[in-house]
Amino acid sequence: MSSKQPLRVGMVGIGFMGRTHSNAFRQVSQFFDLPRRPVLQAICARSEGPVQAFAENWGYASHETDWRKLVARDDIDLIDIASPNDTHLDIALAAAAAGKMVMCEKPLGRSAAESLQMVEAVEKAGVANMVWYNYRRVPAVTLAKQLIDEGKLGKIFHYRAKFLQDWTISKDLPQGGAGLWRLDKSVAGSGVTGDLLAHCIDTAMWLNGGITEVSAMTETFIKERTHTLTGAVQPVTIDDASAFLARFDNGSLATFEATRYARGHKALYTLEINGEKASIAWDLHDLHRLQYFDHSESGRTRGWHNVHITDGDHPYMKHWWVPGLQIGYEHTFIHQAADFIAALDGGAAASPTFREGLATDRVTDAVLASAESRRWESVTG
Amino acid sequence: MSSKQPLRVGMVGIGFMGRTHSNAFRQVSQFFDLPRRPVLQAICARSEGPVQAFAENWGYASHETDWRKLVARDDIDLIDIASPNDTHLDIALAAAAAGKMVMCEKPLGRSAAESLQMVEAVEKAGVANMVWYNYRRVPAVTLAKQLIDEGKLGKIFHYRAKFLQDWTISKDLPQGGAGLWRLDKSVAGSGVTGDLLAHCIDTAMWLNGGITEVSAMTETFIKERTHTLTGAVQPVTIDDASAFLARFDNGSLATFEATRYARGHKALYTLEINGEKASIAWDLHDLHRLQYFDHSESGRTRGWHNVHITDGDHPYMKHWWVPGLQIGYEHTFIHQAADFIAALDGGAAASPTFREGLATDRVTDAVLASAESRRWESVTG
Amino acid sequence: MSSKQPLRVGMVGIGFMGRTHSNAFRQVSQFFDLPRRPVLQAICARSEGPVQAFAENWGYASHETDWRKLVARDDIDLIDIASPNDTHLDIALAAAAAGKMVMCEKPLGRSAAESLQMVEAVEKAGVANMVWYNYRRVPAVTLAKQLIDEGKLGKIFHYRAKFLQDWTISKDLPQGGAGLWRLDKSVAGSGVTGDLLAHCIDTAMWLNGGITEVSAMTETFIKERTHTLTGAVQPVTIDDASAFLARFDNGSLATFEATRYARGHKALYTLEINGEKASIAWDLHDLHRLQYFDHSESGRTRGWHNVHITDGDHPYMKHWWVPGLQIGYEHTFIHQAADFIAALDGGAAASPTFREGLATDRVTDAVLASAESRRWESVTG
Amino acid sequence: MSSKQPLRVGMVGIGFMGRTHSNAFRQVSQFFDLPRRPVLQAICARSEGPVQAFAENWGYASHETDWRKLVARDDIDLIDIASPNDTHLDIALAAAAAGKMVMCEKPLGRSAAESLQMVEAVEKAGVANMVWYNYRRVPAVTLAKQLIDEGKLGKIFHYRAKFLQDWTISKDLPQGGAGLWRLDKSVAGSGVTGDLLAHCIDTAMWLNGGITEVSAMTETFIKERTHTLTGAVQPVTIDDASAFLARFDNGSLATFEATRYARGHKALYTLEINGEKASIAWDLHDLHRLQYFDHSESGRTRGWHNVHITDGDHPYMKHWWVPGLQIGYEHTFIHQAADFIAALDGGAAASPTFREGLATDRVTDAVLASAESRRWESVTG
Repeated sequence: MSSKQPLRVGMVGIGFMGRTHSNAFRQVSQFFDLPRRPVLQAICARSEGPVQAFAENWGYASHETDWRKLVARDDIDLIDIASPNDTHLDIALAAAAAGKMVMCEKPLGRSAAESLQMVEAVEKAGVANMVWYNYRRVPAVTLAKQLIDEGKLGKIFHYRAKFLQDWTISKDLPQGGAGLWRLDKSVAGSGVTGDLLAHCIDTAMWLNGGITEVSAMTETFIKERTHTLTGAVQPVTIDDASAFLARFDNGSLATFEATRYARGHKALYTLEINGEKASIAWDLHDLHRLQYFDHSESGRTRGWHNVHITDGDHPYMKHWWVPGLQIGYEHTFIHQAADFIAALDGGAAASPTFREGLATDRVTDAVLASAESRRWESVTG
Repeated sequence: MSSKQPLRVGMVGIGFMGRTHSNAFRQVSQFFDLPRRPVLQAICARSEGPVQAFAENWGYASHETDWRKLVARDDIDLIDIASPNDTHLDIALAAAAAGKMVMCEKPLGRSAAESLQMVEAVEKAGVANMVWYNYRRVPAVTLAKQLIDEGKLGKIFHYRAKFLQDWTISKDLPQGGAGLWRLDKSVAGSGVTGDLLAHCIDTAMWLNGGITEVSAMTETFIKERTHTLTGAVQPVTIDDASAFLARFDNGSLATFEATRYARGHKALYTLEINGEKASIAWDLHDLHRLQYFDHSESGRTRGWHNVHITDGDHPYMKHWWVPGLQIGYEHTFIHQAADFIAALDGGAAASPTFREGLATDRVTDAVLASAESRRWESVTG
Repeated sequence: MSSKQPLRVGMVGIGFMGRTHSNAFRQVSQFFDLPRRPVLQAICARSEGPVQAFAENWGYASHETDWRKLVARDDIDLIDIASPNDTHLDIALAAAAAGKMVMCEKPLGRSAAESLQMVEAVEKAGVANMVWYNYRRVPAVTLAKQLIDEGKLGKIFHYRAKFLQDWTISKDLPQGGAGLWRLDKSVAGSGVTGDLLAHCIDTAMWLNGGITEVSAMTETFIKERTHTLTGAVQPVTIDDASAFLARFDNGSLATFEATRYARGHKALYTLEINGEKASIAWDLHDLHRLQYFDHSESGRTRGWHNVHITDGDHPYMKHWWVPGLQIGYEHTFIHQAADFIAALDGGAAASPTFREGLATDRVTDAVLASAESRRWESVTG
Repeated sequence: MSSKQPLRVGMVGIGFMGRTHSNAFRQVSQFFDLPRRPVLQAICARSEGPVQAFAENWGYASHETDWRKLVARDDIDLIDIASPNDTHLDIALAAAAAGKMVMCEKPLGRSAAESLQMVEAVEKAGVANMVWYNYRRVPAVTLAKQLIDEGKLGKIFHYRAKFLQDWTISKDLPQGGAGLWRLDKSVAGSGVTGDLLAHCIDTAMWLNGGITEVSAMTETFIKERTHTLTGAVQPVTIDDASAFLARFDNGSLATFEATRYARGHKALYTLEINGEKASIAWDLHDLHRLQYFDHSESGRTRGWHNVHITDGDHPYMKHWWVPGLQIGYEHTFIHQAADFIAALDGGAAASPTFREGLATDRVTDAVLASAESRRWESVTG
């Protein structure tokens, strides 16, 4: 078809994130004019049957059951890691050593120590790298970034973010294994702190700069669950809920909270930023809207603008349909793939790089440390 | 207490509207600095027991059981008619003849023919007069009027209003008698057309000018109900639902609808106006908010403003609490009482006068006529 | 890749709808397990350059510049008509005569007379056929259909629908030609009546049954515009706004309205249905939500449910992501493609067929006739 | 008028709270059938002119300029303290010593130490006492209390409350003196912690039980302001913003935040409670609504209920108008006055008593201590 140079993708993982990443690479060329054309070259997962079915469904040209073989192949330009967190480090190190570009689902490592190794590996290898903090590419969130960078908010006083879910409330839900590894600390690294707060922290630092210190609390409401791999009732090791106070470099105060015990909320990521001149609010359950309050407006009709982010002058939206017609969750991954590929042409790496992913992991480490120490913890690095 | 000249009120009616009017006169002096101080001089209703209890509860100085006696009293300055619709004409004519100021709950008459007699009576007598179309005095609606008059909306293309209720859906609800006279055409004049659409029409003509022609349909969903006065199952004579298309003098198009069969809506009066430059929307279930869209704003953050009408520069609001603290339904009556009394001092009558109330009744008459004729009907007068 | 029998698509049209249909056929197999696998076999448009670029972008195997050649090809199973309205009739007749399946963007013809020919052609040929009234496949709207069919609403009293846009308010906007043919009656058939109200009517009759009679008004606010093809200022022949009252077979009353002069609304399709037991409301600007009111609930906590339609038990949603993550506009076309293909396997045709599309056109014809006659018009057929 | 025994009120303070309390006592008898009839016997403030005007406006029978004289009067049954915080202690002690009932605007004292003295005084004197935490009597909040007490939410996991304002952002705003004493720590005791968080904490402990420990941070964004009493630029001593993490006795986690630097929010008190079975949310800017999510509902139509709290079976609402018609801010004070007076008849004191107010002050003291110590602080008492 296209005469553009192909970008041959080798994907690891066929779960939820394997689907979103595959979909992103499969669709991006139809909507964005990019310097290279992604090709679904190979998909990798442990079990032959499922990976073959996934390959056929998504149109991958080949499949592997050992990621080491995938990394070793000459016909792969980019390794995209969409497998559970405990595999990120090894795959990324091998991919970088093989000179491949590396993309990695968040969080980067299970700890900042792991992430640091990954950063050093890709930087030493000089390969393009990116972490899939996809919510930066929600058009409404990208617009928030533009407005802040243009000074529309003025000095920032407050930042607030929450990520509320309710899918683990039942005590009958088991832990561990396929689909449930997020409840197993040895695989996931942590519970909601690394899974949900990491998103909130990445967006926050992108929009509002560095976090200097945190005071946190965590809780595990259900203390024991059956482990699907052992069949035994075992202690739950991850944090079910995590909340923290924070201070930013710019002097603003913040509250962050994530939980899987907020009945009525499925994936409610919310953020609000209050500046001297203006405020912004957004939530994931209506991701195509931005709430904006501009204090400089005439008093009688001043109020929160409910902005329907579907116009051509909104970030990314000229690539889609016509005003009034909304896009959804999966498009954030397509945007990220587009930005990654577009950046390959120029000098600048697309953000967030592994190094930026490391910065987030340093905050999540500090959060977990503070919950343990019951003191304020500085964010190191 | 106050050295201001009293305005001695004689109220007729102790139902829902008797309460709201009494409350308005009882409270207005505490919040508005007015040229005259209303005094609850006398309350009138047919039954001695209830009217005495009402008088005691609200602090009326006296009570009557015959409105003719009330009208004849020398110590009454203002007759306020809050009794069922079939009493409006006679009381208003007698009050005007006695030289009293006259206020009347809406609709003015059961038909434009009745209303015209009332207009001629008060104009001939030269007495102050007003119809209680209270929704004009919702601060958000008054602000809408200001914005339109200032030209903020530009040329108007569309007007939309609905008044949705659900309290008569059960076929077991009887008709007629105390509390249910709104289901009896001989008392009420019509069903939702005069009860609910009259509000919508009054506001619409105030905001958007005269209506030239209408095409309507009405329906009575439950054909028979037990009449509380006769005990017999009788045909229902009023309209349960009424909708019409309309054209205004200014070239704009409109749709109007009212019903008591809209499950889930208790008193949802909504209006929306679309102009070339801006649009406005409002509803009674959140009466302290105005939705405002200004097309001249910068594209990226343009959106409907959700204006919380609680600031000092919003109409009437400096008389109440502090920004952020909302008022409710009853305050619209207090505002209307304040405007009526304030106007007594000057030359100009407070709007809506009986003559303006007549204009609304001419539209409701045309609506009912069109539903019957199944043709467009011009609004006469 | 897949061993499934291919469904070779020949698409006509490379405008907005050419994109949405192409995207639907390109994506549907990844998300739905279907009996046949659509293949983008050929795309057709008049100009060589644009159609070639479109083919390359979307991965069509070939392209044509004459739809007659496309229809004549042996390697095409399905002709999908996404070109302007004045081409629908001829292409559909030829495709049916050639024994192809036919899908057609709405409205079917420029009038019921044209549509009737198309219906007779596909029925005589016995080929699968469908009209792209895509909003039936918004999961929230499909859920509304389920709830109504299950009797959750009880007897229906009221139906309300509006489709509000604001993109033609400027008098400097020209008419006619590429992108603006919707302002040219000879191409489009009518203005907002066929463009926007047709959607509202299709959904309404699907949810609430047949419409018996209508009383309508239309308006053309800007009387003259420059025509892009002639360069001359010419009268505008389409309706800018259209509103009508209607009665349904089931005794319910309705109001419908569409306009391109509602400042602040880009594509606000809204509908509300009031039944004896429950009510439903939905709008296109937040298409992933359904408002639902169930009167049988306990009084103190009874209220409109704001349902976030992203769960696995919501229509179509198990095919997408996880609870809380919304889909967008384009997915409605994917759902429709999926249902069309799934129905090929069995005996039943996927709805809406051309015959159902004709029923909608009979209502739009009655609306336009009523606006002209200023009388109620029965819906024929 | 009424033959009921009068309750002679002596009010101290003619500011914002003097108005809301006076209004409550002036209106309550018209809407609630109570054992005693409040009489506005005397109003007290320092300056003769303003207090005389206030007395005339509200209909007080007399006025005083020295609260000691007021307390000494034989014709006063109840002393209501609506003056600045630094006056609460002395007046309450004197009133209790004089055997008067005592009501006091919140917070009770400037510190728990002051509050404890007040508690001991009223308990020793055996007089009825109450703190004006009026938001408990928002009908939606009262309904939340009922639902929690009935077990509808099950085990509580999370509590969240915020109180956001934006009125002190300008650095040109002075501190101290009339209307601005809330910026002067010597008068107010603290900034937003005692002013706004105290409301949040009172409601929280009423709904969710005791708070065991807190970790807090506070900030003063504008470090110096001109003091209106001295005319000099002086350090600002109060906290502009205050946030804290907390744990409740019942094992639930909480975040609390208050600020006067949240641009776009005038008085946005919000709360949310997540339980195992159901969740509740409410905010002051739409105080007549309650958001309710019941997980036991059928999955397809499960969603947050938007409950319009205007029905007769909602707390307090049968005393007001008809369904659909909302009340406002001031009504919360009327409800509190009603409950106080109703409780005089029986044995049980109306809540919150001074002792309950003390419990809140102990939490605010712990919050301020934690912000200072940068550690978790236990709530004593």
